[in-house]
Amino acid sequence: MTSPERFERRVITGFSNPTVKALRALREKKHRKAAGKFLAEGLRLLTDARECGHVPEVLVLSSKRDPHPLLTALETAVEAAGGEVIETSPDILSKITGKDNPQAVAGVFAEFDTSLGTLDRSSADIWLVAQALRDPGNLGTMLRTGDAIGAGGVILIDDCADPFSVEAVRASMGAVFTQKIARATWNEFEPWLRSAKGQLVAASLRDAQPYRGAPYAAPCFVMVGNESRGLPEEYETACDLRVQMPMKGRADSLNAAVAAAVLGYEVLAGLGNGQA
Amino acid sequence: MTSPERFERRVITGFSNPTVKALRALREKKHRKAAGKFLAEGLRLLTDARECGHVPEVLVLSSKRDPHPLLTALETAVEAAGGEVIETSPDILSKITGKDNPQAVAGVFAEFDTSLGTLDRSSADIWLVAQALRDPGNLGTMLRTGDAIGAGGVILIDDCADPFSVEAVRASMGAVFTQKIARATWNEFEPWLRSAKGQLVAASLRDAQPYRGAPYAAPCFVMVGNESRGLPEEYETACDLRVQMPMKGRADSLNAAVAAAVLGYEVLAGLGNGQA
Repeated sequence: MTSPERFERRVITGFSNPTVKALRALREKKHRKAAGKFLAEGLRLLTDARECGHVPEVLVLSSKRDPHPLLTALETAVEAAGGEVIETSPDILSKITGKDNPQAVAGVFAEFDTSLGTLDRSSADIWLVAQALRDPGNLGTMLRTGDAIGAGGVILIDDCADPFSVEAVRASMGAVFTQKIARATWNEFEPWLRSAKGQLVAASLRDAQPYRGAPYAAPCFVMVGNESRGLPEEYETACDLRVQMPMKGRADSLNAAVAAAVLGYEVLAGLGNGQA
Repeated sequence: MTSPERFERRVITGFSNPTVKALRALREKKHRKAAGKFLAEGLRLLTDARECGHVPEVLVLSSKRDPHPLLTALETAVEAAGGEVIETSPDILSKITGKDNPQAVAGVFAEFDTSLGTLDRSSADIWLVAQALRDPGNLGTMLRTGDAIGAGGVILIDDCADPFSVEAVRASMGAVFTQKIARATWNEFEPWLRSAKGQLVAASLRDAQPYRGAPYAAPCFVMVGNESRGLPEEYETACDLRVQMPMKGRADSLNAAVAAAVLGYEVLAGLGNGQA
């Protein structure tokens, strides 16, 4: 439904405005959790969200913005959905998003349901799995890689960074809206995985075969572990396939998001889908 | 040479001590540049450095550290090289490194010569090239990946993040000491590249062939561009080979460090060296 008063909007000019404080608080996990909402910035990212069916509940526009048809489309969508459009200064937007040079637009979204039950494993050949991943940038980068390799989503095992943090959303470059996200403990994940067809693969040094040309099978769940400790031995043992990437230098591991990507692209190729 | 007074060391207890201030200042680029020095933390990283011939000029130890033979080896090496060993509190170490839970040891190193002339391209089959890379974490991750794929080093083109920043050194996981690092403008790099054998390869959307199985040749220079803008068209045109990775989703690019890694591992495999 479209609203007749679509060009009426609230203008906020004060840093101490309660709405500004509430939006800014969404940078902190406890406030996100309490509100069930998160922030995303930028016209491109918000357009990706809209085109994937995610319309912000609140749209915050900078008073210093250039007109753009995609911005108009966003405003229309928000108002049609009964959301609110707010206009404010670049300084206040900067305070809300914590970025020195803020984008001209930000949105507040309701957090998605991230239970395992929301995943339809038959919808994609590849799923990424992160265990105790602590860095929100790595998590966002995994979401972005997931989008690129056509993964269905990213499953977060045990105590991971928050996929709805500003840093993760930013690093995801919009993939937070295109990838399914589920959160579970290992004790929830393993029975769910084994309840249907699915191959669990990890990059590992234990009893591993070369990652290149390994017998990957769809749906393939590609798992990487915590940045410092890697995967617990029990989880590696539970894998159907353990593979290793060459390590030619002094280091014995890759950055977690890099490992997920190198392995993810190899799985994509192995499943016969690896050419552009 | 070993010094007879090897177990005499300076103990610093005050936050306002000039040495603490000078060390802390190394977190800022202008001070690093003025001093020609940088900071690195952690026993493992400092041990990697020592084993690669890089001994810190100043070694800073936490008063709350556990004894460790590698720590003793570090102290011995620093004193033998005429460097200084300082002991201080965890709080002051935290202030120096900017990390809440500081490692028990940090070192101050002289910056390396990063001129192109220091590179011996025949020493490795793969070299990574970053153009205008702005994120120090991405830069450090590329160094780490370079180590893993047996690259010779990372060449930084145009205005890149500082490889000696605390963030880059940390993300490199020690590879800042194992990889050669060179900094140059494009106008310096291109003639240097063409002065001898070398294949320049970029991930690109322009007139590109599938990255998988492309005709890579050593020494292969794998180039990625700026996080927002990618590579300038002129630089892409100058490449011997443009390749693309599949992009199955909405996004049209990968994180820069991820792109370097996926492509770097493919080049490693293409050069017949890709198995663990």
